[in-house]
Amino acid sequence: MTTSAETSRVDGRALDELRPVTITRNWLDHAEGSVLVEFGRTRVLCAASATEGVPRWRRDSGLGWVTAEYAMLPRATNTRSDRESVKGRIGGRTHEISRLIGRSLRAVVDYKALGENTIVIDCDVLQADGGTRTAAITGAYVALADAVATLRERGALVGDPLTGSVAAVSVGIIDGTPMLDLPYSEDVRAETDMNVVMTGAGSFVEVQGTAEGAPFDRAELDALLGLAEKGCADLTALQIQSLETHGADAGGPGA
Amino acid sequence: MTTSAETSRVDGRALDELRPVTITRNWLDHAEGSVLVEFGRTRVLCAASATEGVPRWRRDSGLGWVTAEYAMLPRATNTRSDRESVKGRIGGRTHEISRLIGRSLRAVVDYKALGENTIVIDCDVLQADGGTRTAAITGAYVALADAVATLRERGALVGDPLTGSVAAVSVGIIDGTPMLDLPYSEDVRAETDMNVVMTGAGSFVEVQGTAEGAPFDRAELDALLGLAEKGCADLTALQIQSLETHGADAGGPGA
Amino acid sequence: MTTSAETSRVDGRALDELRPVTITRNWLDHAEGSVLVEFGRTRVLCAASATEGVPRWRRDSGLGWVTAEYAMLPRATNTRSDRESVKGRIGGRTHEISRLIGRSLRAVVDYKALGENTIVIDCDVLQADGGTRTAAITGAYVALADAVATLRERGALVGDPLTGSVAAVSVGIIDGTPMLDLPYSEDVRAETDMNVVMTGAGSFVEVQGTAEGAPFDRAELDALLGLAEKGCADLTALQIQSLETHGADAGGPGA
Amino acid sequence: MTTSAETSRVDGRALDELRPVTITRNWLDHAEGSVLVEFGRTRVLCAASATEGVPRWRRDSGLGWVTAEYAMLPRATNTRSDRESVKGRIGGRTHEISRLIGRSLRAVVDYKALGENTIVIDCDVLQADGGTRTAAITGAYVALADAVATLRERGALVGDPLTGSVAAVSVGIIDGTPMLDLPYSEDVRAETDMNVVMTGAGSFVEVQGTAEGAPFDRAELDALLGLAEKGCADLTALQIQSLETHGADAGGPGA
Amino acid sequence: MTTSAETSRVDGRALDELRPVTITRNWLDHAEGSVLVEFGRTRVLCAASATEGVPRWRRDSGLGWVTAEYAMLPRATNTRSDRESVKGRIGGRTHEISRLIGRSLRAVVDYKALGENTIVIDCDVLQADGGTRTAAITGAYVALADAVATLRERGALVGDPLTGSVAAVSVGIIDGTPMLDLPYSEDVRAETDMNVVMTGAGSFVEVQGTAEGAPFDRAELDALLGLAEKGCADLTALQIQSLETHGADAGGPGA
Amino acid sequence: MTTSAETSRVDGRALDELRPVTITRNWLDHAEGSVLVEFGRTRVLCAASATEGVPRWRRDSGLGWVTAEYAMLPRATNTRSDRESVKGRIGGRTHEISRLIGRSLRAVVDYKALGENTIVIDCDVLQADGGTRTAAITGAYVALADAVATLRERGALVGDPLTGSVAAVSVGIIDGTPMLDLPYSEDVRAETDMNVVMTGAGSFVEVQGTAEGAPFDRAELDALLGLAEKGCADLTALQIQSLETHGADAGGPGA
Repeated sequence: MTTSAETSRVDGRALDELRPVTITRNWLDHAEGSVLVEFGRTRVLCAASATEGVPRWRRDSGLGWVTAEYAMLPRATNTRSDRESVKGRIGGRTHEISRLIGRSLRAVVDYKALGENTIVIDCDVLQADGGTRTAAITGAYVALADAVATLRERGALVGDPLTGSVAAVSVGIIDGTPMLDLPYSEDVRAETDMNVVMTGAGSFVEVQGTAEGAPFDRAELDALLGLAEKGCADLTALQIQSLETHGADAGGPGA
Repeated sequence: MTTSAETSRVDGRALDELRPVTITRNWLDHAEGSVLVEFGRTRVLCAASATEGVPRWRRDSGLGWVTAEYAMLPRATNTRSDRESVKGRIGGRTHEISRLIGRSLRAVVDYKALGENTIVIDCDVLQADGGTRTAAITGAYVALADAVATLRERGALVGDPLTGSVAAVSVGIIDGTPMLDLPYSEDVRAETDMNVVMTGAGSFVEVQGTAEGAPFDRAELDALLGLAEKGCADLTALQIQSLETHGADAGGPGA
Repeated sequence: MTTSAETSRVDGRALDELRPVTITRNWLDHAEGSVLVEFGRTRVLCAASATEGVPRWRRDSGLGWVTAEYAMLPRATNTRSDRESVKGRIGGRTHEISRLIGRSLRAVVDYKALGENTIVIDCDVLQADGGTRTAAITGAYVALADAVATLRERGALVGDPLTGSVAAVSVGIIDGTPMLDLPYSEDVRAETDMNVVMTGAGSFVEVQGTAEGAPFDRAELDALLGLAEKGCADLTALQIQSLETHGADAGGPGA
Repeated sequence: MTTSAETSRVDGRALDELRPVTITRNWLDHAEGSVLVEFGRTRVLCAASATEGVPRWRRDSGLGWVTAEYAMLPRATNTRSDRESVKGRIGGRTHEISRLIGRSLRAVVDYKALGENTIVIDCDVLQADGGTRTAAITGAYVALADAVATLRERGALVGDPLTGSVAAVSVGIIDGTPMLDLPYSEDVRAETDMNVVMTGAGSFVEVQGTAEGAPFDRAELDALLGLAEKGCADLTALQIQSLETHGADAGGPGA
Repeated sequence: MTTSAETSRVDGRALDELRPVTITRNWLDHAEGSVLVEFGRTRVLCAASATEGVPRWRRDSGLGWVTAEYAMLPRATNTRSDRESVKGRIGGRTHEISRLIGRSLRAVVDYKALGENTIVIDCDVLQADGGTRTAAITGAYVALADAVATLRERGALVGDPLTGSVAAVSVGIIDGTPMLDLPYSEDVRAETDMNVVMTGAGSFVEVQGTAEGAPFDRAELDALLGLAEKGCADLTALQIQSLETHGADAGGPGA
Repeated sequence: MTTSAETSRVDGRALDELRPVTITRNWLDHAEGSVLVEFGRTRVLCAASATEGVPRWRRDSGLGWVTAEYAMLPRATNTRSDRESVKGRIGGRTHEISRLIGRSLRAVVDYKALGENTIVIDCDVLQADGGTRTAAITGAYVALADAVATLRERGALVGDPLTGSVAAVSVGIIDGTPMLDLPYSEDVRAETDMNVVMTGAGSFVEVQGTAEGAPFDRAELDALLGLAEKGCADLTALQIQSLETHGADAGGPGA
């Protein structure tokens, strides 16, 4: 494992430095909450739809529900992929990431305070350059917060259904060096790839590490977790800053 | 049928006036051509993917192929729709519009000059406010032109596979008055709804008129065709203007 | 554009002449209305099924519902096509035509007078030789009228849910000459192909024109509309004549 | 078990008597062989499509292939059924009958004499009144014979790929009485239902007996087999008679 | 047809002798009834799930419901088959056998005595060596009997919903010799293949005979039926013996 | 976080103790490698199918391929689940676990040494009581090792394609106490649930931790990793012991 300062990255970033992150709120006109989140060239549109009522299996429980769906536009990537709607089935990767985003958001939701309301967050990757699932979670939280605010304005909520915030980042080991927030060109070279979801308070919600090349030892794992803690803290700060800006960035691409 | 000037529209436009139209080229980094087209609040991302080779049924013919796929993000509309990928099948409306866009573009393609190259144009509606299919065709043509230029730069083309340009617009009759380019709030009230695709040279490629309420007579049909001719001519001018701007608007939302 | 009388057609017909049209009512024993309609060698079985009640989304509205489904037997065409049931999905063309037939019939239905009854018209192409969708609409109207009569006999209706009749015909331009009601051999050669649906009263319900080869100009469009008006008027006369024959042609192929 | 002559049937037939059977050859213009077969009010259109070549798994074997597909139009029955194409999957009953028809036909096919040709027989039930699968097999054999003749005329065959003929009939026990060729009204009341496929030479190809109500004993089984032998012999005679008529019944419903 | 005693079988069995049959009850811990049934190397796990209530179409009828599903693990066979869940559709053979098992079990069920309870029997083939459907039926009956006993212990039943027992066996003709209970190596060589389902009282529930090679005559059919009667009687004895053993074989593979 | 020794478990195990683990090799007769693995009452059948050749996208690379599919029998669980084959689509959980097993096994495969051979490991859960995916991975490795040995015996391999072994175990936190190898009754109560895959050499292949209830802190994460290291080491010892037993446990349930 190498962590020497001289290791250089594709884009000149420090090993523990995020790519430029942009969080544009209210990118859509209809959705109760909507965010265009960018981690470098990765660009994900997160739209939160809040409706009264809950799925059948949860009715009359007094509890709300939050879920998420992730998808990628066919030409988000370097070469075009076939649409899952055309293929008639959703792939394993899409399923997996949709479930991850939903679980991550639910970790900070108080269903009782939400009441029998449902919030669905759609995360559509418009352009992919590594870290789409972590950008999606980070943006989805902000869209969720806006949807909750919309519900409150509509008088559909009394308490606060959000018990905290969540953000997510990828970390990986390349040529033995742990690094934060990998773009695609680094991701394909990584021996180990890990996605970490944390609350704003610094606890872990999800840790998903995979040895793509060689298995990793405990020391490497510890180094990766340390980088992820730093990255999630930085993202949490950006989320707070974005949510404090009062509707300032509303209006979409034409604004 | 009323055509008096005093008829007022939701947004104060003249009866034969387009909504504000924006054509942002190179909105994506990977695609051979990409356009974010906006007709008022309708926002469609058109990504053209050019690849060498053609589908199996066309191999060794010396001819190219151009096709299109249309889809809508779940929260493009006022209330959320289920994803077609999740439902496991593509709806009739999606099929119909994908086929329309493909046919419209192929009307100006010289397959022989294209050679054995394939261009797929994905039109994904990010936000819908009426006229999504006409915006898609109008933007898709520009993305197609850029993809052709990219192929030429790569040396994959010799001649010019584009025999002209195409643009499309919707027209409709509301309370007996024919109008151009209907937003959703007008569209739902229209007795008759017509989509017209025309070449830049002023010929018709597609005429699709439907009586949503009462059937329409020949005079109404003629009035609608007249409005459409005007609208397509205006859109053609905007396409030309956009294509003449040399890469000026490249860079996406963060630019 | 050529319209000279000397232009000859495959089967010797005049340019504005329909193929021999046969409308056989009560071709089936079970259906509330059933018609075997033939436009030359094109043969479509239209079966109207009337049931009490409406789909869930329309319940307790006091309004009825009319819809249609179109399909083709695998060997209706010159070479066999795979079944859509075997492929597990309905193709775009099938979707498109089913929707067209449904819209066309609904244009002459008064939902209030129909009451909470549903009529589904199945149009199955037994043999295809061009114009299957226009034959289907023309036959489906007669089957619909018979199903309405059956509902009335059963005492399920009081008023008249049919506000008029509908018929449809194809027109096209071949070698610059506009022609009425194209069989397959002409259809494949047509530069422009248009399907027109009209009421018995002479108004337009649907106009769908497509440039298969070269785009068409306004004068050609006008000529096509004129031919379609003539053809639909002829079909309306045949529909009336068929419906006036009191059950005379009942009994199917064995009769 | 009762077999007394005084047992009366719905339509006055004798217990060992077929319903009126009609075999109309060349009902379609395109198919290499086509038959509209009627067993009483049951009406099945059998279309044989012969093509050069065989499925991939059989290539270069020198052997041909014969298969069949069975389906029912939505309103063939007393109440409308949903289309399998719309449901997106083929039901168990459809699968089962398609396989039965295919196996039955293959029992009289010499693959070597057929050479690398494929014949697909589509059996579409236009109207159902019991015995659709047995009518389908009986008609399909005649369509197959015509398709073989067409292949021979085209010079695609030298020898005779048909080693015999096949016909099929249903038998059942109602109120303890074995009967031949059950219409729907008898079929629903049958305690035991059996479908028997036999060659023209009097051997068995398929025997499928099911106790719908009470189990049946060996004596009842023997009585049913006896009736089936008689019915299949009668059907074989009708097939021979139809095939000897030289194209006389060509021309379809309009003839 | 040869029936001489000197005909030898692969495994030295007599022509009318079953393979070694094992019925292991309570192989699973959760299911209301579960049996691992083995016919030689064929190994089928039958799990009966009993639940209160019936499908929607049977509600408030006072009647119960029994159904079955059959499936094969991908490597049950000599070479691996693709999963039907991965292919997204169930094959015709699977459909056919599931339906056969369900019908066979229902032949001995008194729905009234069962009351509004549903029993689903899942028959999963862990290893296949011929006769999987007959082993499944034979084992499924024992699992059904155990599930009925469980329902009775729970107080969900008063009377006895089983009017008898069912067992099934395959018979076939190889080189002109009829034989009982064919393993795969014999099955592939059989000219005729027949599956017979009988009640413990000796009546027939299903007879499904198929000429795989040459058609069979009445004498051969009679010989096959005789062998099947003998085989089903032997299986009935084994079922009785197994059900009389009081929970002795409970505990699964680790017991 | 509590780790005191007095914390008692459902089954009296120590906090760092595995359930009784059984690895039965050669449970099937056909598969190149097959294992019935049991972790307490969880029972998974792992069948390895080795075939010459690789998927199309890998041809002529000289490299082999290893993949896995996971599924659960409908009544593996306490209440019956619908079959994914019947539903026509694979659920997200199934997809996710199949992918996890495949990745885990590939971590110890040298594709070059495997040559152009493919090994598919099917892991079918016969009975589920928590930890099905970790049991599956642990058993699948042994089946894979046997399949590799079979390939070597067939002369299809020269070198050794296995660079090590893999085993997996679940760990979780219940009432603040970290525990090893959770059965279902503990799993549903866990605040945090983690699955860890390790090589026999003690490196990590996958770490997947999820906060089901409250998020977890770094100290808890460290405690869980420590337990997992202990559990995987124990499982590795059992795998080695099983593989050293020369075919001793061959023969399946009837042996």
